[in-house]
Amino acid sequence: MQYPEPIAKLIDSYMKLPGIGEKSATRLAFFTINMDQDDVTEFAKALVSAKRDLHFCSICGNITEDDPCEICRDKTRDQSTVLVVEDPKDVMSMEEMKEYHGLYHVLQGVLSPMEGKGPEDLNISSLLKRLQTNQAIKEVIVATNATPEGEATAMYLSRLIKPAGIKVTRLAHGLSVGSDIEYADQMTLFKAVEGRTEM
Amino acid sequence: MQYPEPIAKLIDSYMKLPGIGEKSATRLAFFTINMDQDDVTEFAKALVSAKRDLHFCSICGNITEDDPCEICRDKTRDQSTVLVVEDPKDVMSMEEMKEYHGLYHVLQGVLSPMEGKGPEDLNISSLLKRLQTNQAIKEVIVATNATPEGEATAMYLSRLIKPAGIKVTRLAHGLSVGSDIEYADQMTLFKAVEGRTEM
Repeated sequence: MQYPEPIAKLIDSYMKLPGIGEKSATRLAFFTINMDQDDVTEFAKALVSAKRDLHFCSICGNITEDDPCEICRDKTRDQSTVLVVEDPKDVMSMEEMKEYHGLYHVLQGVLSPMEGKGPEDLNISSLLKRLQTNQAIKEVIVATNATPEGEATAMYLSRLIKPAGIKVTRLAHGLSVGSDIEYADQMTLFKAVEGRTEM
Repeated sequence: MQYPEPIAKLIDSYMKLPGIGEKSATRLAFFTINMDQDDVTEFAKALVSAKRDLHFCSICGNITEDDPCEICRDKTRDQSTVLVVEDPKDVMSMEEMKEYHGLYHVLQGVLSPMEGKGPEDLNISSLLKRLQTNQAIKEVIVATNATPEGEATAMYLSRLIKPAGIKVTRLAHGLSVGSDIEYADQMTLFKAVEGRTEM
């Protein structure tokens, strides 16, 4: 015996999402059946719309409804600084901080030989082209994650960009604000000592 | 700054699912953007179809496309036994075992004073009516979960049904097959001793 086709198909669809196995997908599918009709319709529309109406900005690679994106169009922002991040979620985190007013470049990933991701799979060539054609850019802040892959990508970008005479910086590593030294890992402590600042 | 509307709406929809917070919803939404166009269309259709094409069987309360459901329509099944479960997923587990050939009744939940779920919120009155009108039913197997709520619901059903002269049984509790006594919890061990069988 199998589940009725409509629910079997929905389980299959949920299982295509990351981190959702058969058990969770089944739970979600049954939950869906008991949801409000309006919420389900809204959900279906949102899926279609997200896929149809979102594009990548031709300048920075961030997701956007309009091309170029809001940030690239905003001439009041500091046009001399480009902050390079792994994905659009990082742009959102930076914007929520409200202290960075420059531009962005979204790589859409990091270099990862393990996953077969090389420079050609990332928005690196578009970054280089952007730096060549836009003389206003004076500094590139590499804000990839503090993971081995993020570090390797930062190093790779720095080697490519520095020779062009553009300043390349990296976000500071150190203790999280409010954290205990006792619980910090060795690498973080080492980075905190290495990057100590004068008081 | 906010996410573009199409993705913000999709994040909202994902957040309506159980166990999915803002972070997970955002991750799922971005994953969706990178999914195959066909998969997304399929997903949207499955959502709408699951909500539109599935109904509850008017006899047993299980979910089905056609009413009555496949199992209730199947006259080759043992018409004298009704196995009572909490939800449609349990019917599926029982059917996968392939050793039970009787009928089912799906309560759609358990009695839970904590969640304000009383007898009127479950398919209990339809079960009683079914037992009254269908003289062929000789045994009701209560297969609610081995949780306090499941036990209370089983007890409640037993008290309602027994006076009508119908046999009421409960699934056996004891050690899981292949499990170690060392790791069994106290209640399970107690049930295993209490329900010991002669060799």
